[in-house]
Amino acid sequence: MARPILLILNGPNLNLLGTREPEVYGRATLADIEASCRARADALGLDIEFRQSNSEGQLIDWIQEARGRKAAIVINPAGLSHSSVSLMDALAAVALPVVEVHLSNIHRREEFRQHSFVSRVAVGVIAGLGAQGYELAVEAAARLVKREA
Amino acid sequence: MARPILLILNGPNLNLLGTREPEVYGRATLADIEASCRARADALGLDIEFRQSNSEGQLIDWIQEARGRKAAIVINPAGLSHSSVSLMDALAAVALPVVEVHLSNIHRREEFRQHSFVSRVAVGVIAGLGAQGYELAVEAAARLVKREA
Amino acid sequence: MARPILLILNGPNLNLLGTREPEVYGRATLADIEASCRARADALGLDIEFRQSNSEGQLIDWIQEARGRKAAIVINPAGLSHSSVSLMDALAAVALPVVEVHLSNIHRREEFRQHSFVSRVAVGVIAGLGAQGYELAVEAAARLVKREA
Amino acid sequence: MARPILLILNGPNLNLLGTREPEVYGRATLADIEASCRARADALGLDIEFRQSNSEGQLIDWIQEARGRKAAIVINPAGLSHSSVSLMDALAAVALPVVEVHLSNIHRREEFRQHSFVSRVAVGVIAGLGAQGYELAVEAAARLVKREA
Amino acid sequence: MARPILLILNGPNLNLLGTREPEVYGRATLADIEASCRARADALGLDIEFRQSNSEGQLIDWIQEARGRKAAIVINPAGLSHSSVSLMDALAAVALPVVEVHLSNIHRREEFRQHSFVSRVAVGVIAGLGAQGYELAVEAAARLVKREA
Amino acid sequence: MARPILLILNGPNLNLLGTREPEVYGRATLADIEASCRARADALGLDIEFRQSNSEGQLIDWIQEARGRKAAIVINPAGLSHSSVSLMDALAAVALPVVEVHLSNIHRREEFRQHSFVSRVAVGVIAGLGAQGYELAVEAAARLVKREA
Amino acid sequence: MARPILLILNGPNLNLLGTREPEVYGRATLADIEASCRARADALGLDIEFRQSNSEGQLIDWIQEARGRKAAIVINPAGLSHSSVSLMDALAAVALPVVEVHLSNIHRREEFRQHSFVSRVAVGVIAGLGAQGYELAVEAAARLVKREA
Amino acid sequence: MARPILLILNGPNLNLLGTREPEVYGRATLADIEASCRARADALGLDIEFRQSNSEGQLIDWIQEARGRKAAIVINPAGLSHSSVSLMDALAAVALPVVEVHLSNIHRREEFRQHSFVSRVAVGVIAGLGAQGYELAVEAAARLVKREA
Amino acid sequence: MARPILLILNGPNLNLLGTREPEVYGRATLADIEASCRARADALGLDIEFRQSNSEGQLIDWIQEARGRKAAIVINPAGLSHSSVSLMDALAAVALPVVEVHLSNIHRREEFRQHSFVSRVAVGVIAGLGAQGYELAVEAAARLVKREA
Amino acid sequence: MARPILLILNGPNLNLLGTREPEVYGRATLADIEASCRARADALGLDIEFRQSNSEGQLIDWIQEARGRKAAIVINPAGLSHSSVSLMDALAAVALPVVEVHLSNIHRREEFRQHSFVSRVAVGVIAGLGAQGYELAVEAAARLVKREA
Amino acid sequence: MARPILLILNGPNLNLLGTREPEVYGRATLADIEASCRARADALGLDIEFRQSNSEGQLIDWIQEARGRKAAIVINPAGLSHSSVSLMDALAAVALPVVEVHLSNIHRREEFRQHSFVSRVAVGVIAGLGAQGYELAVEAAARLVKREA
Amino acid sequence: MARPILLILNGPNLNLLGTREPEVYGRATLADIEASCRARADALGLDIEFRQSNSEGQLIDWIQEARGRKAAIVINPAGLSHSSVSLMDALAAVALPVVEVHLSNIHRREEFRQHSFVSRVAVGVIAGLGAQGYELAVEAAARLVKREA
Repeated sequence: MARPILLILNGPNLNLLGTREPEVYGRATLADIEASCRARADALGLDIEFRQSNSEGQLIDWIQEARGRKAAIVINPAGLSHSSVSLMDALAAVALPVVEVHLSNIHRREEFRQHSFVSRVAVGVIAGLGAQGYELAVEAAARLVKREA
Repeated sequence: MARPILLILNGPNLNLLGTREPEVYGRATLADIEASCRARADALGLDIEFRQSNSEGQLIDWIQEARGRKAAIVINPAGLSHSSVSLMDALAAVALPVVEVHLSNIHRREEFRQHSFVSRVAVGVIAGLGAQGYELAVEAAARLVKREA
Repeated sequence: MARPILLILNGPNLNLLGTREPEVYGRATLADIEASCRARADALGLDIEFRQSNSEGQLIDWIQEARGRKAAIVINPAGLSHSSVSLMDALAAVALPVVEVHLSNIHRREEFRQHSFVSRVAVGVIAGLGAQGYELAVEAAARLVKREA
Repeated sequence: MARPILLILNGPNLNLLGTREPEVYGRATLADIEASCRARADALGLDIEFRQSNSEGQLIDWIQEARGRKAAIVINPAGLSHSSVSLMDALAAVALPVVEVHLSNIHRREEFRQHSFVSRVAVGVIAGLGAQGYELAVEAAARLVKREA
Repeated sequence: MARPILLILNGPNLNLLGTREPEVYGRATLADIEASCRARADALGLDIEFRQSNSEGQLIDWIQEARGRKAAIVINPAGLSHSSVSLMDALAAVALPVVEVHLSNIHRREEFRQHSFVSRVAVGVIAGLGAQGYELAVEAAARLVKREA
Repeated sequence: MARPILLILNGPNLNLLGTREPEVYGRATLADIEASCRARADALGLDIEFRQSNSEGQLIDWIQEARGRKAAIVINPAGLSHSSVSLMDALAAVALPVVEVHLSNIHRREEFRQHSFVSRVAVGVIAGLGAQGYELAVEAAARLVKREA
Repeated sequence: MARPILLILNGPNLNLLGTREPEVYGRATLADIEASCRARADALGLDIEFRQSNSEGQLIDWIQEARGRKAAIVINPAGLSHSSVSLMDALAAVALPVVEVHLSNIHRREEFRQHSFVSRVAVGVIAGLGAQGYELAVEAAARLVKREA
Repeated sequence: MARPILLILNGPNLNLLGTREPEVYGRATLADIEASCRARADALGLDIEFRQSNSEGQLIDWIQEARGRKAAIVINPAGLSHSSVSLMDALAAVALPVVEVHLSNIHRREEFRQHSFVSRVAVGVIAGLGAQGYELAVEAAARLVKREA
Repeated sequence: MARPILLILNGPNLNLLGTREPEVYGRATLADIEASCRARADALGLDIEFRQSNSEGQLIDWIQEARGRKAAIVINPAGLSHSSVSLMDALAAVALPVVEVHLSNIHRREEFRQHSFVSRVAVGVIAGLGAQGYELAVEAAARLVKREA
Repeated sequence: MARPILLILNGPNLNLLGTREPEVYGRATLADIEASCRARADALGLDIEFRQSNSEGQLIDWIQEARGRKAAIVINPAGLSHSSVSLMDALAAVALPVVEVHLSNIHRREEFRQHSFVSRVAVGVIAGLGAQGYELAVEAAARLVKREA
Repeated sequence: MARPILLILNGPNLNLLGTREPEVYGRATLADIEASCRARADALGLDIEFRQSNSEGQLIDWIQEARGRKAAIVINPAGLSHSSVSLMDALAAVALPVVEVHLSNIHRREEFRQHSFVSRVAVGVIAGLGAQGYELAVEAAARLVKREA
Repeated sequence: MARPILLILNGPNLNLLGTREPEVYGRATLADIEASCRARADALGLDIEFRQSNSEGQLIDWIQEARGRKAAIVINPAGLSHSSVSLMDALAAVALPVVEVHLSNIHRREEFRQHSFVSRVAVGVIAGLGAQGYELAVEAAARLVKREA
């Protein structure tokens, strides 16, 4: 029987991870993060689909496609957190459990980074724990999937 | 002789209409809305072109192409209403009459939904009347087309 | 059998329509608007009662009297839109469907005109479409009456 | 010897009490409230005059007439609380002790209901205690009258 | 030949002048002010019509009637200055020269008294000069009438 | 059979009552207030427990202990009104009817005194009526207890 | 016997009057204004001293020197109105009656022009009446001088 | 050799967990949470010390004592998150790694709950994941301890 | 004859002085500060009582006890400066001269540190001068004591 | 040896230049601007790559690709200036010198156009100088390239 | 024939350039900047007049004198940018083309440096390009002069 | 060997000290303050230079001249505190230790007096201690001079 699939979405510029401002975002690459997510998910009985895009429209398309096909969404909306009502609306529309993750502690950064539209529709938010934050988000999503099942 | 064409644009997530939060957005699908718009336009002597995209860039491209080819624009900018200066600039640039429509009454919702950049360049705004709002917008646009003709 | 009656209310200074700042409010007089509302309502199987007052208290009295006697309310609250909590409370109290209409696009005008207390209790809002906006409001109200019936 | 008279004023829409949004404002009618105010006032040696109007101008006229003829004022300004500087000025001008009463707890409602101009000139404010709040206001006013005497 | 007529309007509570908070508003009564206005106007070749009301609706009616019959308006909007968009709209609609006068210097009082909607449509504003302010306003209006003639 | 008990709580500095700024807070001592509360409660068939503390933590402990043992709470949170989310949370958690009382009319004082977190969870609020306000709060609480019973 | 002297001060850029943005500030030059002020003052039994400077420090020096030597001050602080606490402090320090005058109606202009520090220490304010405003200010100052005498 | 100790602190009202507003805070008691934290910590080679207080002063004392004796701090500051600068200062002063946890998603609640002073000194923040959030915080803290070692 | 006593109070976390963020707060310990305060007070003919607490309630208790027993208060409210209305109220209630001192220049730090409730009731404020600031505060308090004597 | 390459990016709607609102944006087309940039760059020893897109995602992709391949970036972010955190993050991530250019003087336009996220990561900003602004930006970028070389 | 003259004005503290905070303002002295401006202007067929003052009044005097004698103004208003309405008014009054220049990128600095009154009357603004910014401003001014000629 | 010199600067209107609003600023004249400063400085081994000006430009000139010639600056910026970025910039530029002093407690006065630009560059701030505040500032400056030596 097919295992539930977790959609893990990454917003703009996260493809540069590991090289971009490592003192803020850490040295792990996005591939490293995907690997550790997959390992943690596997141990919890889940498959993952791991994607990144610099385009708001593309991210919304992926979220819409997740409806009925994925069990939950883990999302790091990056710079779109703070301005994209459309991303928030897409997440609300598909009605899947959502866990939001940020590599840096956005509450210690510029004022405009301290509000996330996505937080209004996420079940939970994890920030400031770097690449490990993704693993914890996967574990949180796994429990949400189980609860809904 | 060719009839004037009305461009009817739909922003992010409107492709989910009828299934997404029906208590907020109603049960009509986007295809239902297109059909009733076409009927009303036809009765008023207009053709319509009806499009939806989740991508701001795509919507701007369509608006730019409308210049000189379409007679007026009816637009439901959805989540982009509240953040997209570029969409507003595109509408201003093509200098066609614009009617803005929202399915829900945005003035009864969250604070951030109560300001629309598009309203600054639209002739008129219709909100809260669900699918019927589109029909009324078509009628309004028809009169604007006639006035300019 | 008596046809449902639509109460159409006009706030302060709308009696001057057609002469007052026509570049903002258009050239139609209030009598012109009443005539076109009556025609549209008639075609939709409704009677109308059309009134104007410069007095907040008078408008509230009329709204209260509408309870149980009228089927819906179309209201252009004019300058009272922006300050009258009492008008909003009256509309909420009579629990009839309300459609709000503004001749000008209030979102393109002064900051203080961009918030309407009435919008918080109206089903829908139509702005910027001049005298035609009233006709569309009548059509919207007609559908709301049918839905409730 | 004539007993001191308490003027009890009720602002817009309070004539609808008992029927209007009873989950917010309770089931007592304004007549019920008048009766219980009269009973409490009588027990405390006071007469009352109990009035309601939907018109700001009318309320101001009544306040002005109270000067030198009434001993104190109990007022529920309803929707005028939040916008009427003139009502506040009238109360300040007649220089009688004022007790303000609100049926609902305005501090648990919309932001704009949380500021009352009348509170700036009232001795005391009672909110959220429904019809009983009027009785308590009468008792408070009675003591203020005694203190001034 | 008939002399031009100046309409001098007084808002809520100004009928109490001379008795109400004399340390703020001075000891002159409204009749005293009317007399000195009449004297000054007469010297300048103008008649005056001098009115007071506690009702916003009544003031708007008077302003509307002034159209084509009066040469200019001097107005002390009192408490309505700070909240009445309708009063402002009425003044704008009749398109007569307007001089606004306040007995007290509103800029030294509470924050909310420091903004007047009427100032947005008045030619000039005179504040803080007590009863004399009316006389100066009459002189200013006289010159505006002459300029338009 | 045991009578219902009303917990009456007093926040920081209220132990100084009668001596501290009597022009603001009056001349009654806290003991005077306790006595009049007891008398009024007794007449209404209730016992009271009357406490004061300068410590937020102590007040929260007392509120938590009231759960299931007291019938309602009357609280004057004093300076904690304006900053203590924890006090508000404690009151919400014990789910007893709460009446908030302030000796002075906080709406006539500094800006920061005009918002009370406690008001968000109180049924009703009484302010500006001095020591008498406590008595009225006891009467209000008595009715709430009866309603729940 | 020496006549009382009125100090009339003009802030930055007023020396350009008559040529600078005449649609905003009118066509009268500062010399024209001085002449009409002198005429009006003379008729009222006062001498004037009329000065202009582009320097805040110079204006403050003149104000300080006025102490005990001048009877009142008429001041058009121009651009300094909106930012100079020091000018306000100087006027407060010399404790002479002050009348503030502005050529344009500052309440119809940019937001930042709508607050004047000088208004906080002036007895009265006259705005929007152009060069005539100075004459009216002289008359107002004359009465203030008489009252103090 | 002694295992590193994790100090887990709980702010006001968390002792009521499981009974207080379970639809917001879940059904797990604080003892349940302590047990699952201990299990997870044990698996990661850490001991825990688990405490709760309703008193800001007590929490600060415990934080100060942790200096040099504990390896990291996990804290749910509850209502103190939003107002206690002192708690933030204490955490900054002891210079241990801090992970902040909230049971509910504070970003979906009242405006005032969306800012936490503690977030300014925490390494990471976990919100909205209920009792599981504590476990994830323990895991995050374990990694921070290892990194420092 | 007994010398006047100065109460010197220190708020939360000041017991950590000398070790906590020395680049912000300097290297002097609280004991060092006490010693230099005592020396300076002694030279000025005063005794001191020097206390620190992490608890708001405790600090308020000490302030209340000072009434009639101490001659003046020097207080460094630390983190409580910015949120404690109760501390401010306590200081106002005891009606002793108060000098407020801050080790760091709070005006160069985070926005929220730039407002102190205590400053509203203090005679004077000294900030940014480190341990020396206490000595200067003692000297200032000494003069205030002398003036009152 | 290859000459350094300057990436010149143009945001949404700039492809319409020369036709769109020429009174705001001037009559030069984007091709005209490209030609004059190329000429100026050539004279300074640089090649250019000149691109335009209506899509935020596309612009971010181009910025990311510039890393290590281009010497500097000149960007006119147009409508994205005011809302795109992602564009700002992309520019920060590639760590190339950035010069921002705006055709119009954004400080003389609507409030929302006066803040640019891109300005936070740009070395310099040039606004209001029309097509010439691009040339000056090229010269500025040339110097920055030389400085880094 | 005389060449057009460019007035280049420098506000407070710019005389310290090269020594004052070189990490913010660069190492070029004002004399260096004058020399490079003169060279660039000469190449473009213009003369320059280059001045600095710490006094707002002096700068305004120079601006006023430029009227009819200079062809354009380049100004670095330094600290006066953010507070001087008078400087802005002077520039508006002389009706010459103005280019504003700032050495540092004011948009990356403190909040209060991000608004410049001068920008409201300048044609263009150049910021963050150090001494080179002056040269570019000279080139921009040269083109404006040519356009007007 | 020459003693270090302390520059003591006084802003606008301080020359009026002793006569201007003595209930706010005290009865000491500026000469009295100079004398007590000189005495205290002398005792601490310092010379002083004591100056006052009503002109911002003059104060900036004096600050600039202090560079390399004075050891520290004590400044009471008076009304310039709240608006002069240039004064702040001058103090930052000369890089001498600065102690700011205010005669009155600016935190108990109008809102606009509670922010001082100078505080952003001062080491320490002393307010509300009248003429004695200057003496304490001299002592503070003396220690700063010693520390730097």
